[in-house]
Amino acid sequence: MRTIDWSDGAVRIIDQTRLPGAEVAVDLRDVDDLVEHIQSLAVRGAMALGVAGALGMALAAVNAERSGTDVDRALDLAADRLSHARPTAVNLSYGVRAVQQARAEGAGVAGLVNAALAIRDEDIGANDAISDAGADFLAGARRILTHCNAGALAGVERGTALGVIQRLHDRAPLEMVYVCETRPLLQGSRLTAWELARAGVPHRIIVDSAAAGLILTGRVDAVVVGADRIAANGDVANKVGTVGHALAARHAGIPFLVAAPESTMDAHTLTGAEIPIELRGEEEVLTVAGRRLAPAASHALNPAFDITPAALVTAIVTETRVRIHAEHPLAPARTDPSALHPSRSSS
Amino acid sequence: MRTIDWSDGAVRIIDQTRLPGAEVAVDLRDVDDLVEHIQSLAVRGAMALGVAGALGMALAAVNAERSGTDVDRALDLAADRLSHARPTAVNLSYGVRAVQQARAEGAGVAGLVNAALAIRDEDIGANDAISDAGADFLAGARRILTHCNAGALAGVERGTALGVIQRLHDRAPLEMVYVCETRPLLQGSRLTAWELARAGVPHRIIVDSAAAGLILTGRVDAVVVGADRIAANGDVANKVGTVGHALAARHAGIPFLVAAPESTMDAHTLTGAEIPIELRGEEEVLTVAGRRLAPAASHALNPAFDITPAALVTAIVTETRVRIHAEHPLAPARTDPSALHPSRSSS
Repeated sequence: MRTIDWSDGAVRIIDQTRLPGAEVAVDLRDVDDLVEHIQSLAVRGAMALGVAGALGMALAAVNAERSGTDVDRALDLAADRLSHARPTAVNLSYGVRAVQQARAEGAGVAGLVNAALAIRDEDIGANDAISDAGADFLAGARRILTHCNAGALAGVERGTALGVIQRLHDRAPLEMVYVCETRPLLQGSRLTAWELARAGVPHRIIVDSAAAGLILTGRVDAVVVGADRIAANGDVANKVGTVGHALAARHAGIPFLVAAPESTMDAHTLTGAEIPIELRGEEEVLTVAGRRLAPAASHALNPAFDITPAALVTAIVTETRVRIHAEHPLAPARTDPSALHPSRSSS
Repeated sequence: MRTIDWSDGAVRIIDQTRLPGAEVAVDLRDVDDLVEHIQSLAVRGAMALGVAGALGMALAAVNAERSGTDVDRALDLAADRLSHARPTAVNLSYGVRAVQQARAEGAGVAGLVNAALAIRDEDIGANDAISDAGADFLAGARRILTHCNAGALAGVERGTALGVIQRLHDRAPLEMVYVCETRPLLQGSRLTAWELARAGVPHRIIVDSAAAGLILTGRVDAVVVGADRIAANGDVANKVGTVGHALAARHAGIPFLVAAPESTMDAHTLTGAEIPIELRGEEEVLTVAGRRLAPAASHALNPAFDITPAALVTAIVTETRVRIHAEHPLAPARTDPSALHPSRSSS
């Protein structure tokens, strides 16, 4: 399954707003249509958005050539529309810029399509490397807990945290994956559970607040999550709820692993305190499935992310390195991955 | 407002499954009907369940007398049904035993009803004393976080944790109460928010997993929760999610207070490990507001409670004592309640 791909002159996506009820592939044939689907979250996730930016530029070039209009002007218009489709997602611009650079270096339309496909393949390769490195790091863990969706639906073919989980399962069947439902938008129960069901991985959906009790009573071997941004000091911004799981993992002495691409590392942000936390609309909390369950007089506070301090993170795996926070004691039974991969940098 | 009461030979409850949309009183006229409403959580909360146990026994006795059947046999059957209506809550049995003891001491049917009403009145008095003791303990705290509903709806006329919060607010207006929505059944957003809105206390509903981030970033002065059962060593069984808040409070160095009646103390259960955790139906997690949001192939695990180890509890306040777990450092600004109440036992 590819969440987003190039298909015969169109961008083909799986419409995530229809999941898990229906698996619907949609072919998007112009940039306007793609931008609309990005804004409705039909395609979402940092890595998938980078690919969407690149493929959207390819689409603009192909359409311009087909209709005999100016390719450069079409690329300029598409770059502007795609880069601003969502205010927070930096990856959109990353994909756009890659295609712009190919054009600046003299690529024709076919070359621009190839540059976009290279971004797609880079994403697939990075996720594959992260999956391997994470599975090495957690070798032996059979009961895993994860939060939100850092799966294939957030990338192209394979996830980060969920890539690690599926790679572990490929090597030796997992006993159980605990999927936090991830209120308020339920990416865990809607998307992660769907991916695990499709892959035949044993899993149970839990309410987010059940995680601590399961971890503290010894029913979880490791926690694996993705990241939205990682500060220079190793503080991790991820979906709200992540830091609570990290606290429980620390208390129980099990590994808390962050799986993310290098592009998530933000060298310009020194600590998590500098990362702005997006406050989303309160109706996401007050209404569920379109129905208001809270009293009319009550309001909500809806932070979309939280910051997990580096000290609570056992390690961060990316496509090129395993960054171990040595101050966190690994559980006694765990293998030291730096011994397995002496060539990987450890800091 | 009384959540549960005796009304002309019936047990009258406010059906909490209808809140906050509608405030509906229901008269339950036999034990089967009462047990059904206990299991559907129409009546819930440790103290209300104690009163339900007692009033249920009175109901059995009155009905047996009315129909000319054997009162003792009816009491035995009712005791068995009521005590096992829910596995984790110890208070059901407490209420049942109080009426059994009155019978053993020779009470007739009218005497049994009076014994049950005494449990109701005891509950009202205990909640008042707990509210005072808790507000003394947290004097100065202006931003409070609570979980689930330990409010009037969990007692008869006044809550435990929410009684403490309302007493604090009566003494000096609170800045903010963060109400965890409490998935899966949303007792926080449905019931606690409803009580706070009714009382005019400033509050915001948050998803449960947002609590840790708020606590760790210094936006909460204290956490107050109720309890469903407290083991002899001080381990606390309460609504799933409680232990996560306790971990965050410990990490942030703020007080984590448990407010509960003495009847919640279970001297026969040595540690939390001996407390059975009720596993409820998975549809509570998989469907929201009657609509299934999770994939058809996925299952859920739905523990209703978790155990907070005594070491993570700053103190337990009951109607007769403040039990301080001295190994937990109080936040520097907090008053030492043992200094305020030297006559209260501290262990």
